[in-house]
Amino acid sequence: MNRDELTSKFSTVRVMTEEICRPLQTEDYVIQSMTDVSPPKWHLGHTTWFFERVILQEFTPSYKPLNDQYYFIFNSYYQSFGDRVARDIRGTLSRPTVEEVYRYRDAINKRVIDLLGAADDKMYQKIAPLVELGLHHEQQHQELLVTDIKHILSMNPLRPTYKARKTSAGGREPAQSFVAFDEQVFCLGADQNGFSWDNERPQHKVFVNKFSLMNRPVTNGEYMEFMNDGGYTNPLLWLSDGWDTVGSQQWNAPLYWEKVKDSWQVMTLGGLQPVEPAEPVTHVSYYEANAFARWAGKRLPTESEWELAAKVHQVSADKGNFLDERAFHPVAAVKNNGPLLQMMGDVWEWTGSSYLPYPGYQQERGPLGEYNGKFMSNQMVLRGGSCATPRNHIRSTYRNFFQCDKRWQFTGFRLASDTNER
Amino acid sequence: MNRDELTSKFSTVRVMTEEICRPLQTEDYVIQSMTDVSPPKWHLGHTTWFFERVILQEFTPSYKPLNDQYYFIFNSYYQSFGDRVARDIRGTLSRPTVEEVYRYRDAINKRVIDLLGAADDKMYQKIAPLVELGLHHEQQHQELLVTDIKHILSMNPLRPTYKARKTSAGGREPAQSFVAFDEQVFCLGADQNGFSWDNERPQHKVFVNKFSLMNRPVTNGEYMEFMNDGGYTNPLLWLSDGWDTVGSQQWNAPLYWEKVKDSWQVMTLGGLQPVEPAEPVTHVSYYEANAFARWAGKRLPTESEWELAAKVHQVSADKGNFLDERAFHPVAAVKNNGPLLQMMGDVWEWTGSSYLPYPGYQQERGPLGEYNGKFMSNQMVLRGGSCATPRNHIRSTYRNFFQCDKRWQFTGFRLASDTNER
Amino acid sequence: MNRDELTSKFSTVRVMTEEICRPLQTEDYVIQSMTDVSPPKWHLGHTTWFFERVILQEFTPSYKPLNDQYYFIFNSYYQSFGDRVARDIRGTLSRPTVEEVYRYRDAINKRVIDLLGAADDKMYQKIAPLVELGLHHEQQHQELLVTDIKHILSMNPLRPTYKARKTSAGGREPAQSFVAFDEQVFCLGADQNGFSWDNERPQHKVFVNKFSLMNRPVTNGEYMEFMNDGGYTNPLLWLSDGWDTVGSQQWNAPLYWEKVKDSWQVMTLGGLQPVEPAEPVTHVSYYEANAFARWAGKRLPTESEWELAAKVHQVSADKGNFLDERAFHPVAAVKNNGPLLQMMGDVWEWTGSSYLPYPGYQQERGPLGEYNGKFMSNQMVLRGGSCATPRNHIRSTYRNFFQCDKRWQFTGFRLASDTNER
Amino acid sequence: MNRDELTSKFSTVRVMTEEICRPLQTEDYVIQSMTDVSPPKWHLGHTTWFFERVILQEFTPSYKPLNDQYYFIFNSYYQSFGDRVARDIRGTLSRPTVEEVYRYRDAINKRVIDLLGAADDKMYQKIAPLVELGLHHEQQHQELLVTDIKHILSMNPLRPTYKARKTSAGGREPAQSFVAFDEQVFCLGADQNGFSWDNERPQHKVFVNKFSLMNRPVTNGEYMEFMNDGGYTNPLLWLSDGWDTVGSQQWNAPLYWEKVKDSWQVMTLGGLQPVEPAEPVTHVSYYEANAFARWAGKRLPTESEWELAAKVHQVSADKGNFLDERAFHPVAAVKNNGPLLQMMGDVWEWTGSSYLPYPGYQQERGPLGEYNGKFMSNQMVLRGGSCATPRNHIRSTYRNFFQCDKRWQFTGFRLASDTNER
Repeated sequence: MNRDELTSKFSTVRVMTEEICRPLQTEDYVIQSMTDVSPPKWHLGHTTWFFERVILQEFTPSYKPLNDQYYFIFNSYYQSFGDRVARDIRGTLSRPTVEEVYRYRDAINKRVIDLLGAADDKMYQKIAPLVELGLHHEQQHQELLVTDIKHILSMNPLRPTYKARKTSAGGREPAQSFVAFDEQVFCLGADQNGFSWDNERPQHKVFVNKFSLMNRPVTNGEYMEFMNDGGYTNPLLWLSDGWDTVGSQQWNAPLYWEKVKDSWQVMTLGGLQPVEPAEPVTHVSYYEANAFARWAGKRLPTESEWELAAKVHQVSADKGNFLDERAFHPVAAVKNNGPLLQMMGDVWEWTGSSYLPYPGYQQERGPLGEYNGKFMSNQMVLRGGSCATPRNHIRSTYRNFFQCDKRWQFTGFRLASDTNER
Repeated sequence: MNRDELTSKFSTVRVMTEEICRPLQTEDYVIQSMTDVSPPKWHLGHTTWFFERVILQEFTPSYKPLNDQYYFIFNSYYQSFGDRVARDIRGTLSRPTVEEVYRYRDAINKRVIDLLGAADDKMYQKIAPLVELGLHHEQQHQELLVTDIKHILSMNPLRPTYKARKTSAGGREPAQSFVAFDEQVFCLGADQNGFSWDNERPQHKVFVNKFSLMNRPVTNGEYMEFMNDGGYTNPLLWLSDGWDTVGSQQWNAPLYWEKVKDSWQVMTLGGLQPVEPAEPVTHVSYYEANAFARWAGKRLPTESEWELAAKVHQVSADKGNFLDERAFHPVAAVKNNGPLLQMMGDVWEWTGSSYLPYPGYQQERGPLGEYNGKFMSNQMVLRGGSCATPRNHIRSTYRNFFQCDKRWQFTGFRLASDTNER
Repeated sequence: MNRDELTSKFSTVRVMTEEICRPLQTEDYVIQSMTDVSPPKWHLGHTTWFFERVILQEFTPSYKPLNDQYYFIFNSYYQSFGDRVARDIRGTLSRPTVEEVYRYRDAINKRVIDLLGAADDKMYQKIAPLVELGLHHEQQHQELLVTDIKHILSMNPLRPTYKARKTSAGGREPAQSFVAFDEQVFCLGADQNGFSWDNERPQHKVFVNKFSLMNRPVTNGEYMEFMNDGGYTNPLLWLSDGWDTVGSQQWNAPLYWEKVKDSWQVMTLGGLQPVEPAEPVTHVSYYEANAFARWAGKRLPTESEWELAAKVHQVSADKGNFLDERAFHPVAAVKNNGPLLQMMGDVWEWTGSSYLPYPGYQQERGPLGEYNGKFMSNQMVLRGGSCATPRNHIRSTYRNFFQCDKRWQFTGFRLASDTNER
Repeated sequence: MNRDELTSKFSTVRVMTEEICRPLQTEDYVIQSMTDVSPPKWHLGHTTWFFERVILQEFTPSYKPLNDQYYFIFNSYYQSFGDRVARDIRGTLSRPTVEEVYRYRDAINKRVIDLLGAADDKMYQKIAPLVELGLHHEQQHQELLVTDIKHILSMNPLRPTYKARKTSAGGREPAQSFVAFDEQVFCLGADQNGFSWDNERPQHKVFVNKFSLMNRPVTNGEYMEFMNDGGYTNPLLWLSDGWDTVGSQQWNAPLYWEKVKDSWQVMTLGGLQPVEPAEPVTHVSYYEANAFARWAGKRLPTESEWELAAKVHQVSADKGNFLDERAFHPVAAVKNNGPLLQMMGDVWEWTGSSYLPYPGYQQERGPLGEYNGKFMSNQMVLRGGSCATPRNHIRSTYRNFFQCDKRWQFTGFRLASDTNER
């Protein structure tokens, strides 16, 4: 990207983050409704800190930070960058105020744009990839903003609405079927074209045994069958850790579902609405996805299988339901011209693969080496992006990852099988 | 009180609460920095709920609440009034917004004043005592607002200031001495004149053995001697529960103290300032007060002793350092015309008495019976009010109470002795 | 006591401790079924350590301990005597073995007896009171052994029996009535005659208002009325801390009660048996006693009231149901020649008094000062001894103390009233 | 195996379990020193329950269990077999006594042997595989017995010794080097010959990229270099979860190491001894192995790499240091005729592979399906067996698995590299 393109993209992404926050009241920006959630104003500040600390501080001679304490307050987990506010007390900080955080954004935006314009070519070559990485980082926080706002508002007894929405028409999703793939040696991971995270590289060969992949994600309707069949009360369907979690968390449905007069309702960013059977099920944990698969006599796909299928069928993000659509909710699948539906967008799909380094993995040099590599334990890979992901952020090699019990992201799944079924 | 007086007092107290909040940013209203602390906007709402739920709801035919959910959100601990938001998640609620809470206050204020004006005499006789009780309740929350705001701001790395303050002149406090009292049968508790809580009644006889009471509270200077003598590292000075708390909480000084380059500083509502040796020590727990007393070869006074001394010497709140002074911090004692200094105001004084019912205690009838009686276990009595207490709220029979490990109130102590020392 | 008497008493008490353990299997000696419980072999060792560490080590020139590590393993809570095994992991120590602990007892017994014989008069005067104190200490552990063994065996799904027992005949207890007392100044506490703990002294004057005391402890039958009337489900009957405990511990009956086919059974040291309505209720917490009293429109007596009543009516331990009776269970009251039944023995009676120092309290000098004084917070006083207390250990001034939620001791209660009822 | 062989193997394995316990005192059998550890008598009972519940109960008409409660007490985690004692309170059960457990073993042994003799051929075909599986199960518990006994004794301040041992001669291990492997499609997993667990099957193709594997496990000497280089204080070496664990557990060395006067000592089953630099490091967690590898600029091998290397070089268990050697401790490597040393025995080797199902995995039918499959989350694979593993229990396809933070097994590791180094 040249300077103009990058500057333009910088502005676009930075504005989008603020647009997501526009419907909020000042008070909403302050809340941390659980440890996984960060206050929206912290997201606004942290994404700004990233540009200040990683770029301005490093590449501006005798740089003076806007506020020394922001380095402490807005650092997330970078040991290389010094101390930080413990994650679980981000919601105890009333200051800086929302207005001060926006001023912080404006000031850093200006400095970054100035630097992009003023840097000589040699420095630009160093800075540009970091700015681009910072924008991908910010896009990840755009998704987190959406899911965190959802959690914050959903916890509130007043049930505030983020954005009014019409209930979907209630169409009928395409029937469940499976797409078969033969065994093969496959090149997994990102090549050198375009941006990718270190954890998607290097591209390398894997052997994939024959398998079949479901044409679309599992729906609410299918998930309710599992529930009605005692899915949450039969320990034999569950991983041992999963069953412990069902007990300790008293799970009996996906997150945000609630029984209202014998029918299931679900909190959305548009308020409480009936559970729509045709929509992909979402806000389920890996444990629930795994239990459903066992109940169904299937399993979850590995990330190799998922990526192979996506590459073979050249699934694209163009038509997907992403943040750009401002639906803030997955929608029912509709037939289109390929066998695999909703691979991109709507819901992140749990795979049966642990989040581990690829053979030959090299983490980023310097402090950004902490970005991905240190989380490679006790997490599972998810693929494909969701209705909260920016469209141009996703790709078929993209690896998202969460612990097995997390549910506040737009997480769903599709099934796979060892046989060549259809 | 007649209607005009009561209406006037109602307005005065209600306004005072809001005045305390005036220096706050919107974001400050939302924070719960620890379980003991409530978000300021919750205090504003809860004190309003009290008038709505206890009076309007009960005495207005076919009363319709302003918002049904407020009954859930702003109930503190009254089982009689139904369910409530768990105390430890009050800080997860962004709504109602601060502005909405203020509107709630205005609306209920108007309704209460209307009711006071419109009630016939018979109803007025029923309502007036409840309104008065509600105002005393609100004054308790005024004190909590001050201490909670202090905690919220002090936790913040930016160290925001509530109200600028000049450091005190650094005078010298009167020397420590003791005032002797002979053994006697004494009438403890409140008589029927004026307002008192149920827990101050009935007045009853107690036998008080001879004792001596310190002329003023223990100062920072005296407390630093205890610290310098290894007070926090010698288990033999401590109650067993206290020593466990020292270990688990890693206490080595009063709350809000911090060592800055070898000298002790303290966070105040006016910002960080040097610890002033002449001022009464505050933000210490019962455990610390008890350990200091053992170190000093003395003990804490019982509440009978404290009240006897206060009554014998007719200590008055007139000259004390209270919320009305807007100092928001205890000040050094100065000589005046009585032997006992600072009995009223500055710091609440831990006594060696557990918070238990007086002989013949009758809790309030109805739901307000929950107000005091159900907390009569595992708490100690404090006497005398603090710099955050409204002056007209305190009296010599007033019993405050907290658990032994609490430190976020303006709590201090004075010593007593079994002998007739001077 | 002269040397022969003391030596004889020493042997008698030491043997009694071992007799209590005789029905145990080796494995029973090792278990810590909850933090409050200590493994029986630890009790055997700790009571021996007491004599070794407090007497032999201090009064024998160049004393060499039997095993250095025993000083670490068998110290309970004496900071003055150095480090100790954390209380909650006493049950992780398989060694020393039971046999080694008995050998330890034998060796120390011999040394103590030798020292008592060999000491010159001056030294005997120093040692004798410590030996006596050590025997009272051991008697306290005899009671704990009984209650700890009960807990250990009751937890076991095999329901082992400590000692076979016949179910009581099922007689009818005397009807509930109250004994009236006029207001008076009363001398509370122990005088200088005979052994007493520091916490019973000094004797001092208290003013006791008029009151009435129930003729006997509350029975199982009466307690079941409370239960049947929703006692465990009505928060308005409970102290706030108590109601939290009911919820977190899921209490719905006294400890050791269980519903078997619609009727209440209770685990005893003689096995599972039907709850006998005429027996005093036991294994209830302070919270439960307090809730029952509120339900009954009464209250618990203060310790002053209890002791005044005991002294006025000269209640004696002679006829009580104590450890000496080997019943290991409270029995139904029977009429005898006084108005107050079962003041001594059967069940410890919760009072409404916090465990606090008496006016003029002086703790023991030296390390034994830790014995009682440091526990004077967050505990309530119990009076009168139980079926697990040695008869010659109890007296009317004796103050036992436990936290409000403890239930594994033989704890019951009787009611009091502010009026002069009968 | 025919009946005689199976009966003979049954007796041999069952006797071996008891032989492991022979050095114990009765008290040692009862202790659960942490949740992961089970009391030795529970292991003795549980392995017996397995034969009774899985075989006798199912294949003996109108079978009457020895003791109904044993089904509750000795069930480990089989939901299919009903309720069980919570794992973390196994150490609160004194009964059944050790002697009763041995009698239980004898009685069930006799019944199993009788059944093997009396079964007709059709039934024998059903029973024999279950008996064999039960023996492999018992061998796993033999290893757990050794590691649990080690933990129980090591916790004890008296430092009891399980079996006296001579300190090793202190030889010099072979220098670190790497063995190179080219990329290839490899058949991972067990074929149909001989016993294997369901989790080793089916054999399937994987693509293994070129890599190098270290010739022997990392030694104490090498690990001390890591420690001396600040390994435990540099967060950048650690996985995020690992660094949290270092902090919360306060790790600064492998489990059982302790600093005695400036030199590292280690608790072994033969008592405290100096850390021997030439021996493989053991009792390290996955997190520590991973951090060491990062520090060394290497990584851990995947399980595919490990198994490929083992199969290519035909490593055998014949010469390894196993339970059969009764060393109860890893020994220094010695040169022999292959390039890969100590692949089998000494220490389990952490791999960088998560414990997940192989493609085409089918869990055992019936209740034994719970044996392996439900643990396939949040655990890492270990390979090769240890000095506590029975020799005939291990094979190159064997997959052991533990959570990343576990250290009480004999766990070590060797390094791998993406390049073809030597």
